[in-house]
Amino acid sequence: MTPALTPTKPPVNRVANAIRALAMDAVQKANSGHPGMPMGMAEIGVALWGGQYRHNPANPKWINRDRFLLSNGHGSMLHYALLHLSGYDVSLDDLRQFRQMHSKTPGHPEVGVTPGIETTTGPLGQGLGNAVGMALAEYLLTAEFNRPGFDIVDHHTYVFLGDGCLMEGISHEVCALAGTLGLSKLIAFYDDNGISIDGKVEGWFTDDTPRRFEAYGWNVIRAVDGHDVAAVAAAAASAKDAGRPTLICCKTVIGKGSPNLQGGDKVHGAALGEQEVAAVRAYISWDAAPFEIPGDVYAAFDAKARGAADEAQWDGLFAAYGEQYPELAAELVRRMAGDLPGALDQAFEAALSSCIDKKENIASRKASQNAIQALAPVLPEFLGGSADLTSSNLTNWKECVALRSGRPGNHVNYGVREFGMAAIMNGVALHGGYIPFGATFLTFSDYSRNALRMAALMKLRSIFVFTHDSIGLGEDGPTHQSVEHVSSMRLIPQLDNWRPCDTVESLVAWRAALERRDGPSTLIFSRQNLPYQERNAGQIADIFRGGYVLRDAPGAQVILIATGSEIELAVASAAALRESGVAVRVVSMPCADVFDRQDAAYKASVLPCGVPRVAIEAGVSGFWYKYVGLEGAVVGIDSFGESAPAPVLFKHFGFTVQNVVGKVREVLGR
Amino acid sequence: MTPALTPTKPPVNRVANAIRALAMDAVQKANSGHPGMPMGMAEIGVALWGGQYRHNPANPKWINRDRFLLSNGHGSMLHYALLHLSGYDVSLDDLRQFRQMHSKTPGHPEVGVTPGIETTTGPLGQGLGNAVGMALAEYLLTAEFNRPGFDIVDHHTYVFLGDGCLMEGISHEVCALAGTLGLSKLIAFYDDNGISIDGKVEGWFTDDTPRRFEAYGWNVIRAVDGHDVAAVAAAAASAKDAGRPTLICCKTVIGKGSPNLQGGDKVHGAALGEQEVAAVRAYISWDAAPFEIPGDVYAAFDAKARGAADEAQWDGLFAAYGEQYPELAAELVRRMAGDLPGALDQAFEAALSSCIDKKENIASRKASQNAIQALAPVLPEFLGGSADLTSSNLTNWKECVALRSGRPGNHVNYGVREFGMAAIMNGVALHGGYIPFGATFLTFSDYSRNALRMAALMKLRSIFVFTHDSIGLGEDGPTHQSVEHVSSMRLIPQLDNWRPCDTVESLVAWRAALERRDGPSTLIFSRQNLPYQERNAGQIADIFRGGYVLRDAPGAQVILIATGSEIELAVASAAALRESGVAVRVVSMPCADVFDRQDAAYKASVLPCGVPRVAIEAGVSGFWYKYVGLEGAVVGIDSFGESAPAPVLFKHFGFTVQNVVGKVREVLGR
Repeated sequence: MTPALTPTKPPVNRVANAIRALAMDAVQKANSGHPGMPMGMAEIGVALWGGQYRHNPANPKWINRDRFLLSNGHGSMLHYALLHLSGYDVSLDDLRQFRQMHSKTPGHPEVGVTPGIETTTGPLGQGLGNAVGMALAEYLLTAEFNRPGFDIVDHHTYVFLGDGCLMEGISHEVCALAGTLGLSKLIAFYDDNGISIDGKVEGWFTDDTPRRFEAYGWNVIRAVDGHDVAAVAAAAASAKDAGRPTLICCKTVIGKGSPNLQGGDKVHGAALGEQEVAAVRAYISWDAAPFEIPGDVYAAFDAKARGAADEAQWDGLFAAYGEQYPELAAELVRRMAGDLPGALDQAFEAALSSCIDKKENIASRKASQNAIQALAPVLPEFLGGSADLTSSNLTNWKECVALRSGRPGNHVNYGVREFGMAAIMNGVALHGGYIPFGATFLTFSDYSRNALRMAALMKLRSIFVFTHDSIGLGEDGPTHQSVEHVSSMRLIPQLDNWRPCDTVESLVAWRAALERRDGPSTLIFSRQNLPYQERNAGQIADIFRGGYVLRDAPGAQVILIATGSEIELAVASAAALRESGVAVRVVSMPCADVFDRQDAAYKASVLPCGVPRVAIEAGVSGFWYKYVGLEGAVVGIDSFGESAPAPVLFKHFGFTVQNVVGKVREVLGR
Repeated sequence: MTPALTPTKPPVNRVANAIRALAMDAVQKANSGHPGMPMGMAEIGVALWGGQYRHNPANPKWINRDRFLLSNGHGSMLHYALLHLSGYDVSLDDLRQFRQMHSKTPGHPEVGVTPGIETTTGPLGQGLGNAVGMALAEYLLTAEFNRPGFDIVDHHTYVFLGDGCLMEGISHEVCALAGTLGLSKLIAFYDDNGISIDGKVEGWFTDDTPRRFEAYGWNVIRAVDGHDVAAVAAAAASAKDAGRPTLICCKTVIGKGSPNLQGGDKVHGAALGEQEVAAVRAYISWDAAPFEIPGDVYAAFDAKARGAADEAQWDGLFAAYGEQYPELAAELVRRMAGDLPGALDQAFEAALSSCIDKKENIASRKASQNAIQALAPVLPEFLGGSADLTSSNLTNWKECVALRSGRPGNHVNYGVREFGMAAIMNGVALHGGYIPFGATFLTFSDYSRNALRMAALMKLRSIFVFTHDSIGLGEDGPTHQSVEHVSSMRLIPQLDNWRPCDTVESLVAWRAALERRDGPSTLIFSRQNLPYQERNAGQIADIFRGGYVLRDAPGAQVILIATGSEIELAVASAAALRESGVAVRVVSMPCADVFDRQDAAYKASVLPCGVPRVAIEAGVSGFWYKYVGLEGAVVGIDSFGESAPAPVLFKHFGFTVQNVVGKVREVLGR
């Protein structure tokens, strides 16, 4: 529904107008960017940041700060302006560098680049998912760490969002789950300006959004005048007592303050132009030059003193808590720092010994569950989950507790919400205190793909578990058979993708994912049983290098490279070739991404120059040419799968010793 | 909310019990599959197929048939049983072959494999999106072809869906749009059984679904007893008069008829076991052996006579229509057959001449719009659209009419709903009558990725337009800069991906996508201007082969392979190398997928053996090794982008003549 627009009288709040000026001037200077949202949400920003939002500009990493996210990230200048005006280390010079190379003020907010930015947004809807994840992490930490009189963890998650976020499907997934879980410290501000890029939204977006969110069990505050600072502040204050997540629907005028463009789509995503910039100055009575802020604005909005006092008060509380509960305090610090517990080494070594002793031929998804079971007791930060496939993905463990509304837990039934799950996991990882992992079938990694990308871009320790890889899942057929997914995820920069071949590699993959502090991992497991492979200690150590020599022969004439379920075939083919006099090396490459990061000497020791190579993977072949070259060969699947029992499929698609041996003979020219 | 379960008295409808028996027996025989949904939705199937559903089992391609889709496709045995019992060419033997290689009854429904199956489902929520697309196509065709007294196009789209579909975000996107557009011939049946794979949904899915759909403007029929055939039939009948899309909420018991498993999650996705199969037989008083159907069931449910009569009646109407409106009749037949109009050749040639005359240096997204503008007048089946980026994607043209509720059109403002758009487009393509294209930024192809995959799997003529490729989009930064997407889409089997370098290649890409009848295409365009490239007629013809020699030199010592925006750099680098005495061939490879399908001789003529190769593409490098081998080189980007103006970025990431020349010299060893 088109909102009833506020009468277009000029806005008067000085701080909001300062935000308007900074936004329009920065966009004008860059000749690129989005002035409409910052100008339209300026009063909402002032209302929240001038009141309820508890933070310390001098310490953006204060662990009990409120979290603030801009899900409509194209309005980044709003956030940058708020950071600057409230006293963060974001200078006027930084604002002048808006959208320039390596500046603190990139086109969309990027976590790690700018102090005070909590997440990277731009791809719509995901910031909202991150917010749900942060609110979830906060809720779980309160249950774990707070004690009577010590609300050590006690903060809110505030998120701004627009029509675009609400149209995106992910908003449904994450808000429905937030409603079910009753995440009461999540407060969302909807910039209901009735405009999206194509124009007035009434032609394509007529949801009764308040009704929709009530259907999710949210507290909805309707029809707040988004240009009335006091009204927005009152709504934000009242939201805290709702006992469930709150959506504050703020009616706004996009580009408010631009006399000729406000309320229309032209103000959304381009510089206003010098003429209109001047017109805005006159209209909002703003005399200051571009990138000049009058002292009274700083005086009104600077949050350094208040932030320092808030944190100091908390520091005092935490000190007292530390005296009474020294172990809990130390544990919270460890958890928020993301350090792994010392006991992990021992648990890993015990699990490894068990794998080696048992030599089990089990599905790698089961091997994964065994790894989870072995490590979870020493990893209280483990937060597992599945998108409604728990009994298939095997992400649960004996002692895990399923999270429910009003009942904290460490295993999340995310429901059939793959994308939402991944965005929520990213929010959990961003918040800190937990290491999230969540699972679905590998094919449905497609649904969550952009959240995997965002995890990689943000270098988060999110662990994405994907089971039922490739044609081995059998009868469910081509819709469920991932032939391109492993290779396709390998193309995402900074994402490590592990496809282990047995119990030992599965355990190592888990450990590697846990140890990795600068990026996410995918763990890709089979539905079907995979045989145990014998290795010596050096080989086991080398699994951590992503690729290693699993079987060797003196003077190897050919190298077979394989992953996961095809290691069995590679080993059998090597044996057959050996019998016919061909010396074969088998390289297991559970994680090509990690292998590629090894030094040249190690890589050359595994894949020496001049030895012909044949890669085997039950997926698309293209990826492997960077290892086998034009003279090598790939045994892969470059079509969709079929619905049939797995053994029939492997044979049908040429995953047989006979076919591999034939390919090797072709490559060797005999 | 957990539905109030129907008292678990044994079901009595004979046809429904026949469906139950076929479903449980087929799953038991395959020892794989999903009995719960077919047993739970059996009466709903009987109610719809025994009444409102208008179809002709003898002619599954009758153009005015109602469409029926199973969005919860794991319940495929329900559809197969309905097809068999109503008289389609799906025999008991076919049912016995459930989930076996190359059978007519694969694990999930697959269009093109089984007569009467309208779409391939399994990935949840997308069948619902397809249904919206079909209802949209029907609506548009009625407006275009019906005349007073001649409701030639007049059919409904029925879709079954479950909790999973409703949890998926895509259900929000497509149902919101269906509500906005008021697609009144869309009728959805919600299998509200309160169970998903993880168990009782109350822990993770507590939406007030009726309220949610009312928020979308749907007609909602609440709390229908899904085991009461008459009640479901009455609801379906009443839905036809609603004037807007209808959701019929059917309370059901999953696995109804299984005395020990019904109502629980164990009946969802595995064979019941011989013992429980026997128990079901006793419980529902079903005496017939597996895969035996009593004659009275066939007699009650066979739809061949009714279907033949329905189609005959329509044939009569269509014949009269053809006499009165011969051109319209012929046009409808052409459109539904998917044949392109004869006038396309001429329009294409004129547009080509114009490109060659003008030699414009424009963004390829603008070149794309020019192509659309040139072809649309002769292509009334063109149905364009954008996910709220019309003015950026440039998918509109001068004469296009924006679709609105109650106003047919040929350009769809899909809203910020990328995944929904793609699934709706697939539904339109499945329905026939239109060739859908829809656009977003290339990075957000991630959001729709599984629908691209489904289009490829179903071999649909969906045309996915992606603009603002790679770092050329500049300041919006890494969230918006697609570095891995082109390569990643190339990994999807049967998907043709075009990345043209100028006006001529852009036009040819459009033509190729239109001509392709056995699969979808992506058309990938730049934000920034790209220079026109001179070519002779033979070269222009060879663009259709996906890769061709754009610039040559006698005795070429090195081949530069490039696409899209990097052609300019390849040509400039070739010139620089030529000046220093190196003879260079430049191969333009706008569509590697098509190039790979050419005969070996052509491929060798473009990329002769033994000539070193360097590929240049502003994206991840891995893909190109299958062309350049281990001895070649790739100038690519294996990290995320940055927020900065495009020229700064191209330089930063090494897309300079100097860097390319350096790589070539490395490859040549001098």
